[in-house]
Amino acid sequence: MSSILIKNINLNNTESDILIESNKITKISDSIDFQADRIVNGAGKSVIPGFVNMHTHAAMTLMRGIGEDLSLMDWLHKTIWPTESKLTDEMVYWGTKLACLEMIKSGTTCFNDQYWSLPFAVKATEEMGLRSVQPFVILDLMDESKSGKLKDECEKMYELSKNWCNRNSFAIGIHSPYSVSEKMIVWASEFAQKRDLLVHIHVSETKGENEDSIALHGVSPISYLNKLGVLNSKVIAAHCLWIDNEDIALLAQNDVKVVHNINSNLKIASGFKFRYNELKEAGLTVTLGTDGCASSNNLDMIETMKIAALIQKGWRGDPTAMPLDELISLATVNGGRALGIKCGVIKEGYLADLAIIDTNSFAFTPNINFLANLVYSANSSCVDTVICDGKIVMEKRVVDGEEEILMMVNKLYKKLL
Amino acid sequence: MSSILIKNINLNNTESDILIESNKITKISDSIDFQADRIVNGAGKSVIPGFVNMHTHAAMTLMRGIGEDLSLMDWLHKTIWPTESKLTDEMVYWGTKLACLEMIKSGTTCFNDQYWSLPFAVKATEEMGLRSVQPFVILDLMDESKSGKLKDECEKMYELSKNWCNRNSFAIGIHSPYSVSEKMIVWASEFAQKRDLLVHIHVSETKGENEDSIALHGVSPISYLNKLGVLNSKVIAAHCLWIDNEDIALLAQNDVKVVHNINSNLKIASGFKFRYNELKEAGLTVTLGTDGCASSNNLDMIETMKIAALIQKGWRGDPTAMPLDELISLATVNGGRALGIKCGVIKEGYLADLAIIDTNSFAFTPNINFLANLVYSANSSCVDTVICDGKIVMEKRVVDGEEEILMMVNKLYKKLL
Repeated sequence: MSSILIKNINLNNTESDILIESNKITKISDSIDFQADRIVNGAGKSVIPGFVNMHTHAAMTLMRGIGEDLSLMDWLHKTIWPTESKLTDEMVYWGTKLACLEMIKSGTTCFNDQYWSLPFAVKATEEMGLRSVQPFVILDLMDESKSGKLKDECEKMYELSKNWCNRNSFAIGIHSPYSVSEKMIVWASEFAQKRDLLVHIHVSETKGENEDSIALHGVSPISYLNKLGVLNSKVIAAHCLWIDNEDIALLAQNDVKVVHNINSNLKIASGFKFRYNELKEAGLTVTLGTDGCASSNNLDMIETMKIAALIQKGWRGDPTAMPLDELISLATVNGGRALGIKCGVIKEGYLADLAIIDTNSFAFTPNINFLANLVYSANSSCVDTVICDGKIVMEKRVVDGEEEILMMVNKLYKKLL
Repeated sequence: MSSILIKNINLNNTESDILIESNKITKISDSIDFQADRIVNGAGKSVIPGFVNMHTHAAMTLMRGIGEDLSLMDWLHKTIWPTESKLTDEMVYWGTKLACLEMIKSGTTCFNDQYWSLPFAVKATEEMGLRSVQPFVILDLMDESKSGKLKDECEKMYELSKNWCNRNSFAIGIHSPYSVSEKMIVWASEFAQKRDLLVHIHVSETKGENEDSIALHGVSPISYLNKLGVLNSKVIAAHCLWIDNEDIALLAQNDVKVVHNINSNLKIASGFKFRYNELKEAGLTVTLGTDGCASSNNLDMIETMKIAALIQKGWRGDPTAMPLDELISLATVNGGRALGIKCGVIKEGYLADLAIIDTNSFAFTPNINFLANLVYSANSSCVDTVICDGKIVMEKRVVDGEEEILMMVNKLYKKLL
């Protein structure tokens, strides 16, 4: 059983030793005497749980910067969709590797994905050493003739997923209530429920989506999904930006998990009045995500925390909104809870997914409030070392294979333009 | 005359050589043959103008993280003001050094300051090699008995400023229309106009400030300043967040320069609907600033560009708002224009104030759109080398004296708590 002993590191303002055996944190104490395989000197550094990025389309790193400052329809029709039609399995593999590299470099150890060429995305993630939830995406664009093929592929992928390493788990992606036919939504939801799988779905991202839903179904997207029997505690609903009190009550009743993706919402101008206080008061598990790099351009959870909190304070006119202790939970343990993974907390018995922060810099000077410095002063270059599932995936900012990933992506993306 | 030759660097998507002689850019061409004192290899890197941070309270780095998630009145009365009352000249000196260190590390070469212990702030800035505008701050809290002392000090400081190095220039700070008596506002404005000095003032930062102004003077803060004869092209108005069309017309009529400080506005919940489009259409010079580290926690202009643009897109519901080419101008050349300094453009004849960006990283991969990657994907750790006034102030992220600055601030801030 492999072991890592982190010595003299700052954990919640206390100098601590942390012992990792196999893939778990087994002991935390002010001084641990243990013959570990690896000793990591944490002196002058701080440790935080690895971030859980709850909404990604990982391989869209390939499209970073492809459609800037465009209206939503130009963005979709003239850049994103024509580009995606040229994607190959090889591109998804290297794009996912780039995403993992970027997540490791910015302290993320787990992500909840939704993209194409699943076996290639999973292979890339396994090789990079990260933890992820990888859904098979159901998207029929309301064309029910596609259902047979989709069902077959989904069954097949579910069988294949039994060979994935224990860090990656299979899920069902229902693209959205407006892009998937009612029959396929119900089938996919039942498929997931029978096998106790997570469902990852985009809901109420734009005002137009809600208006269309009311015109078509007479109710909001969330109410529509509720009528179809889709909502339950294994459902992860990305965005939930345009929701009323009735929607919040339905989400709460069904213990649906919510992902807030502020950078993407702002950049493509979907909206910004995310009702964090109301969702929190309803007892919902709220989490944070970056969305894909085609819309938000990076996968940086420190930046996401910062902008999410700044916007809450701003739009509510309340500087006490989304305080630091809640903010760090949104980006870590709440994600773990949503995914049913015991991560996001540095505590004995939890998975050894963590990031070591170098505080010897201007951004952490003076060091009056570590979390404030991390979120509001620093950027993700403060992440020094990352451990995922008990293995070091980055040490002193060095990630194995980095040069090859940059080279391959810089070669492959040209075929997309 | 000292010289630097930057070879094979990417400038606006073209590989170029840039020659710097003394403190100016003297030649830009695809290949320059010159026996320079220093050759800088720019291969694989890009060059941008150094950022101009148009609103800082530099030494407030000392208060980074001191009052988080507090309501405005608790923040001011319980943390900021009691803390500021303990500030010493030595603290301002080291706090300003920390601010300069941070600005250099994030690519800023010029800042428009407003703080106390002016000679010590200037000494720190001169030693760090940055360019700045340093006002003597007029703040009498409506107590006219202070006017004699303030006038004397202002005269004295103006005389002393004649010995400052050519990178630093003297200005007048009028704290705000609500914190300075009418008589002192008029005196300070006339003092500045007679000597052709810049005036740096906070205006219309909060809704409450406007309401108070209307109650007290019958007009908005901008209209009040206009009536006093204060507004002209040498006035730099920080914030201008709560302004109506009449205010915009007055600003335009007088060619007042405007500074947008989005992070500070959001964090202390002053507001966010900065009327960029309307100010631009009125022909005004709009610039960006970070404000002091007590409110916005850092002095990072790349982050400021990102959040300013995201919020414009978000609150206007328009993803084409504040496009990249305008955004980079807001953060560079517009600041130079506002300050009357020939900087912010990489062009022959301009001051040699520039930042070299390392694009060999995940954040710039793929490199489809350099500006999009700089603003929306990267963070300021991509700044590799910084030249200010023709001198290298950072090379490969090394700044002289960094360790001493961190040590001194970490020692001194404890006296403030």
